[in-house]
Amino acid sequence: MVETMREGWTELEGWTDPEQSVAKEAFERAYGRAVERLVTALRDRAAALHSAESVWQLHDYLSIERHTMEGRFDFRLDGILFVFASLVKDDLLTIDELAGLDAEKLAKIAAMSRF
Amino acid sequence: MVETMREGWTELEGWTDPEQSVAKEAFERAYGRAVERLVTALRDRAAALHSAESVWQLHDYLSIERHTMEGRFDFRLDGILFVFASLVKDDLLTIDELAGLDAEKLAKIAAMSRF
Repeated sequence: MVETMREGWTELEGWTDPEQSVAKEAFERAYGRAVERLVTALRDRAAALHSAESVWQLHDYLSIERHTMEGRFDFRLDGILFVFASLVKDDLLTIDELAGLDAEKLAKIAAMSRF
Repeated sequence: MVETMREGWTELEGWTDPEQSVAKEAFERAYGRAVERLVTALRDRAAALHSAESVWQLHDYLSIERHTMEGRFDFRLDGILFVFASLVKDDLLTIDELAGLDAEKLAKIAAMSRF
């Protein structure tokens, strides 16, 4: 099992308390899955190392993944619906796991996740 | 097995051809061992990953190792005896594997490797 996120959680202005809880829990769940996925990929790659070049490629891969995750899981109100849509699209979250958000937010997330 | 170094080899001015060969072969051998050692460490660390934090620590570790190796195996005449001494000290090379260098060079390398 992976740890949950360490970063602070920003209050989402205009969201109800139950919505905040749903969003926070969904976000941490997706983060945990992203880390699990990365750990699995790293183990596979480590097992296949065979040269200095492959070690540096692993390093480059990890640099990019870290940068991507730091950007992706930097939780802000701006674009939060888009962030959720991208997590759904990337199979890190299901729409069901966002149950509790109001219908309009859910509809937007679902629609965007299909792009 | 790991690949040998890809970087070019600088001629060592004032060294005989046989000495050049001994130095080059020893250097590549030490590089191969350093890579093998790093690969083993990476596999062990990958197997022990359990959190996002441990993944970022692996990344930091790899960044430092890469930097160290790029500096250490950048072959130049300046300080080449010291480089060999540090490789011997770090168990990446034995004095025996430098047989063929003249006695004075070997004595210097052996002496420095004990510091």
